[in-house]
Amino acid sequence: MLLNNKISITFFVQNILRQALLIFLYANVVVFLKLFSPWALVIPISIAAILGTCIALLLAFRTNQAYDRWWEARIAWGAIVNDSRSLIRQLQMFLDEGPHKVSLLHAFVERQCAWCFVLGDTLRGQDITERLREFLPSPDRQRLAEATNKPNAILLAHGLAIRQLFDSQQLTDYQMVQLSTNLNSLTDSMGRCERIKKTIFPRTYIFNMQVFIYLFATILPFCLDPVHYLLDVPLVTLLSSAFILIEKSALQLQDPFEGKPTDTPITTIAQTIEIDLKSMTDYPIIPDKPVTKDFYSL
Amino acid sequence: MLLNNKISITFFVQNILRQALLIFLYANVVVFLKLFSPWALVIPISIAAILGTCIALLLAFRTNQAYDRWWEARIAWGAIVNDSRSLIRQLQMFLDEGPHKVSLLHAFVERQCAWCFVLGDTLRGQDITERLREFLPSPDRQRLAEATNKPNAILLAHGLAIRQLFDSQQLTDYQMVQLSTNLNSLTDSMGRCERIKKTIFPRTYIFNMQVFIYLFATILPFCLDPVHYLLDVPLVTLLSSAFILIEKSALQLQDPFEGKPTDTPITTIAQTIEIDLKSMTDYPIIPDKPVTKDFYSL
Amino acid sequence: MLLNNKISITFFVQNILRQALLIFLYANVVVFLKLFSPWALVIPISIAAILGTCIALLLAFRTNQAYDRWWEARIAWGAIVNDSRSLIRQLQMFLDEGPHKVSLLHAFVERQCAWCFVLGDTLRGQDITERLREFLPSPDRQRLAEATNKPNAILLAHGLAIRQLFDSQQLTDYQMVQLSTNLNSLTDSMGRCERIKKTIFPRTYIFNMQVFIYLFATILPFCLDPVHYLLDVPLVTLLSSAFILIEKSALQLQDPFEGKPTDTPITTIAQTIEIDLKSMTDYPIIPDKPVTKDFYSL
Amino acid sequence: MLLNNKISITFFVQNILRQALLIFLYANVVVFLKLFSPWALVIPISIAAILGTCIALLLAFRTNQAYDRWWEARIAWGAIVNDSRSLIRQLQMFLDEGPHKVSLLHAFVERQCAWCFVLGDTLRGQDITERLREFLPSPDRQRLAEATNKPNAILLAHGLAIRQLFDSQQLTDYQMVQLSTNLNSLTDSMGRCERIKKTIFPRTYIFNMQVFIYLFATILPFCLDPVHYLLDVPLVTLLSSAFILIEKSALQLQDPFEGKPTDTPITTIAQTIEIDLKSMTDYPIIPDKPVTKDFYSL
Amino acid sequence: MLLNNKISITFFVQNILRQALLIFLYANVVVFLKLFSPWALVIPISIAAILGTCIALLLAFRTNQAYDRWWEARIAWGAIVNDSRSLIRQLQMFLDEGPHKVSLLHAFVERQCAWCFVLGDTLRGQDITERLREFLPSPDRQRLAEATNKPNAILLAHGLAIRQLFDSQQLTDYQMVQLSTNLNSLTDSMGRCERIKKTIFPRTYIFNMQVFIYLFATILPFCLDPVHYLLDVPLVTLLSSAFILIEKSALQLQDPFEGKPTDTPITTIAQTIEIDLKSMTDYPIIPDKPVTKDFYSL
Repeated sequence: MLLNNKISITFFVQNILRQALLIFLYANVVVFLKLFSPWALVIPISIAAILGTCIALLLAFRTNQAYDRWWEARIAWGAIVNDSRSLIRQLQMFLDEGPHKVSLLHAFVERQCAWCFVLGDTLRGQDITERLREFLPSPDRQRLAEATNKPNAILLAHGLAIRQLFDSQQLTDYQMVQLSTNLNSLTDSMGRCERIKKTIFPRTYIFNMQVFIYLFATILPFCLDPVHYLLDVPLVTLLSSAFILIEKSALQLQDPFEGKPTDTPITTIAQTIEIDLKSMTDYPIIPDKPVTKDFYSL
Repeated sequence: MLLNNKISITFFVQNILRQALLIFLYANVVVFLKLFSPWALVIPISIAAILGTCIALLLAFRTNQAYDRWWEARIAWGAIVNDSRSLIRQLQMFLDEGPHKVSLLHAFVERQCAWCFVLGDTLRGQDITERLREFLPSPDRQRLAEATNKPNAILLAHGLAIRQLFDSQQLTDYQMVQLSTNLNSLTDSMGRCERIKKTIFPRTYIFNMQVFIYLFATILPFCLDPVHYLLDVPLVTLLSSAFILIEKSALQLQDPFEGKPTDTPITTIAQTIEIDLKSMTDYPIIPDKPVTKDFYSL
Repeated sequence: MLLNNKISITFFVQNILRQALLIFLYANVVVFLKLFSPWALVIPISIAAILGTCIALLLAFRTNQAYDRWWEARIAWGAIVNDSRSLIRQLQMFLDEGPHKVSLLHAFVERQCAWCFVLGDTLRGQDITERLREFLPSPDRQRLAEATNKPNAILLAHGLAIRQLFDSQQLTDYQMVQLSTNLNSLTDSMGRCERIKKTIFPRTYIFNMQVFIYLFATILPFCLDPVHYLLDVPLVTLLSSAFILIEKSALQLQDPFEGKPTDTPITTIAQTIEIDLKSMTDYPIIPDKPVTKDFYSL
Repeated sequence: MLLNNKISITFFVQNILRQALLIFLYANVVVFLKLFSPWALVIPISIAAILGTCIALLLAFRTNQAYDRWWEARIAWGAIVNDSRSLIRQLQMFLDEGPHKVSLLHAFVERQCAWCFVLGDTLRGQDITERLREFLPSPDRQRLAEATNKPNAILLAHGLAIRQLFDSQQLTDYQMVQLSTNLNSLTDSMGRCERIKKTIFPRTYIFNMQVFIYLFATILPFCLDPVHYLLDVPLVTLLSSAFILIEKSALQLQDPFEGKPTDTPITTIAQTIEIDLKSMTDYPIIPDKPVTKDFYSL
Repeated sequence: MLLNNKISITFFVQNILRQALLIFLYANVVVFLKLFSPWALVIPISIAAILGTCIALLLAFRTNQAYDRWWEARIAWGAIVNDSRSLIRQLQMFLDEGPHKVSLLHAFVERQCAWCFVLGDTLRGQDITERLREFLPSPDRQRLAEATNKPNAILLAHGLAIRQLFDSQQLTDYQMVQLSTNLNSLTDSMGRCERIKKTIFPRTYIFNMQVFIYLFATILPFCLDPVHYLLDVPLVTLLSSAFILIEKSALQLQDPFEGKPTDTPITTIAQTIEIDLKSMTDYPIIPDKPVTKDFYSL
């Protein structure tokens, strides 16, 4: 998530520089030809207006879908926060007071934190070795090493640990089933993130978008009265670039797990979960609230 | 929530005064130059129309998303009302009649009221000491003092109190689990509010919006026939300001937990919950219906 | 819900008469001045077109939100129909055959009917004394008299009656909890209606809407060629009125519990519920299907 | 659901013939007057364009809502398919193997098929006597004869049959409650269909729509240059008819239970359910897949 | 899902070639006539603009609905991934450790994999014999051979296998019911896919779309100034083709189970499920991650 306004806009404008330059050059050529060649082609500006309306509507659709993906990713991580808190609170309610209660709870808290961080890192394609070492005991780490889907394997470890509590009669049948539905919710959130990560926005739509924008940029210089060189060229460049700007913003927003400034701040959320869960279970040391780094937090 | 129409509009128009003034000055300069300089630049008004269509569509998207955030915040607090009533009604159904029933229920009612008020105040970043003193007994207050997330800690206290009822055999296993799912619902609503509070609307979209509006304001004076000084300047100012007005309204609405007049009326809702729960559990004194203050209620 | 087409449109057009008249007078003044004064102001009609596009998009948003509120109110009452049927069917399934079964069921049916009618009347701010006398026995009525939220108090009475069945061992623990989740659903629907009733559509949006429409009505007469008095005045009046017409329709639809012709037909729905529930539980006399009155049914 | 393309379009175009003819005659009159009368009224075509934009947006809203109703009806029937399969599968899982299992299951399968067909026929206002005779034994038919809401009465019969299985200890308490939630789902789908069937799309919106379209058709002939009789008349007719065409399509789609070609294919779906359920429970004779009739299937 | 950008666009453009050619020929005829015939028909270009706006809005609606169907199909398969993982994890939690646990689990894993592949192949209308042979033992295959709905029959087999575990006291009553709700979720996802597969997008809307686009293509050549043969013809062809392009993209996207490049990648998803489930249950050999073939993966 972008925090510093200025840097983000610089970062952002760079994205459209190349296209803007191309259109600038093309506009120069056309306007130059129009001024100095006898063969004057004039397209009625209404044609550009029709194209403009279409582009506006396609961009509205595009922007909407990109925003929905981004917002759904945020909702999925919001659900992870809720289900993490509920899982630990339910364990605290269901387990009998006893000498082992705190250490049992701590094992679940650490496994849950591990799951959050590992899920985030896996979505971003980052290395997770460090995370596992921080939160999980050695035997669990080894079993995880073989798993093809690490976060799923951690949920399975949760499930088997709950089963052990049932076997040692610290949970009733009914409580075990209730906790297993909690794990189902976490599975659903994980699957939601994976779906957003793996589903490419239909290429044909992005292609259509570009067909319309470049058609507009091609036609526009012919629609303007061939009088003011200094006016026509910047007008064409600015209008076309403004369209490309929106298209690029949608492109940025639609993939929220790529380690970009517009990402869902999954690391920050995972840290918040860690603080909340440790605060709930009387950890002696609770990490500080995450400080946002240089200019954006992930 | 705004209640007095007149004050709210004054409050609201102030927001766009600075920008409107800037555009007014700029329009004056351009129109002045157009009237008295020989170098007459004329941009076809269709260009302004194309930009106008784009701005209209982007504003529609923007307005929609802002409204959705505001409405979702209201839905979350509506769910809190429902779940509060259901929690207390279920406790009333599940607990056996007995000498302690009323005092047990009252403890839950007060903790639930505390949770509602504390959640609201925390979202708005206000001090909660007074609220806690009003509703919670001293030992609970102390335990809360250490918690990093106060509302979450109150839900945990609910959970542990339900567990005590189970331990003293006033609730069956099945009833305890049922009540714990009720707490999960409250956790979800809390998480929903936190998500809306903490997720910044993507800056790039606000930036794009402004690019388009200022491009429009820049181009518009060149599109008008350079004849009527007294007409062109107010036209440019009014049109551009109208766009900025909508952009600002969306900006206001999108963050519903900031203590502004357009906020979700969380304090009023929490008071309604207090009245309902106390009325359900035969409190001798039930607070009056919240009277809306000066010109808006929060 | 409007049933007679003609009356409804009359009822409806009255709403915009005052504004239409005002715009008619204003248009007369402007056109008169344009024809007989030498100082001819002409605004390019594209400016009106830009405003028209914006108004169209804002009206589309407005219409959508108003419809969504109206449709959500209808969905909430649809859920009340479903949950009422399910509640009574589940009671019929869970209670043992016995001499008291029918009278027990009838008490629930009557309390449920009372709840539906009382909820509807409360939402509309109507007196409920008659309804309570029709459906509830005297002691229940007295207890309700003190409640601040009558429908909520009836649900609590449901809950305590279910508890009594559990105490007299006519329901198992599990069945009691299942029925209590059914009451939770009814609580949710009630809360949904209250939310729609109490949440004012953001005033700023209505204000923005009006700013745009009146700006349009102000500018339009200056955009038309000052030739045909008889054409310009009706054109301006009709176009502006058409916009106001849509704005007013949205205003009507957005508050579906005000006793207006566009309301959700809550009384009719409550009557349908009464018929269904009494038909399910072998009442000797079942009320007739609600006949729609004069020209609309509520 | 329309299957044959050509017939459906004929069927469909007939709907707008009357209005198209009216507009055609009106356009003839106006164009005739414009060509041969000295009093030439000319309305700027931008006015028609503003109206056109508004109509386009209102039609988009209208089309969207009509489609949503149609799609929701389809979703409700999709849920009926799912819940029917789940109900029978769960009964197969919960009932002990024994001599009566098959006949018990068959009774449920037939009652469920009866429910699906009766619900469909009731929604369409068709006679259900034949359906009942096909699927239900005589005593059940008689009890149904008195019910005001037949599908609801069949669900109640399901419920009481499940209770009998519990009384004869073929189901546990927990299994009975689980099956009753399955009936709740069916109740919800039924209520959803009834809601769509009984809720009239707000008349005011349809009225507004028509106000705009006829205003457009009235103004358009005055906007065209009075030169080409043969061009102006068809243009006005075609454009206005195209708008009416979309309005009519929405009108057709919005009521999906009227026995029209655009209906939800409820009979076909009910037949599919019958085949699936009978195939699951080893019926000796399974009906053939529904063959689509003449040109559309219902 | 398309992976190679270039091939996909070729594949895609072929779709509109025929229509584009037709419009190209028509435009040639009209422009030729306009240049060399004395009878010059000129339609104001605003008419084309009004049509353009309508087409843009209808295309926006169309694109939205097509995208929603495609995205819902993806969501359904995402839910299948989640529920498959949850089903196997819950079985692992509920079954006692013992000599048969692994083989019992493997039977469920294989049946679940079979279900995923068979559902995918059935939706695409492909042969499933090979899939069944790969995953199911011979007796199960024979029973399936008679079923009319293969995936539904596999879910029933799941259900009966769970019942057997209950009969041999390896599952409690409560656990069996919990697993059966898991099967209900899978039934829902299956029904969702079938609904999308079987519900034809309303033909009337596609017809309306085409009416507008061809009306636009017919009118446009008359709106352009009859001067530049070389400009008018490509302009008309490009603009009309661009509209048809979007219409075709929607047509492609709206049916996501037809074996086209824009399909939901169901085979890839089923392979991912196979890998995950086998990895969870300690299979000695786990298939490799699916490698995407030539230019798209299904």
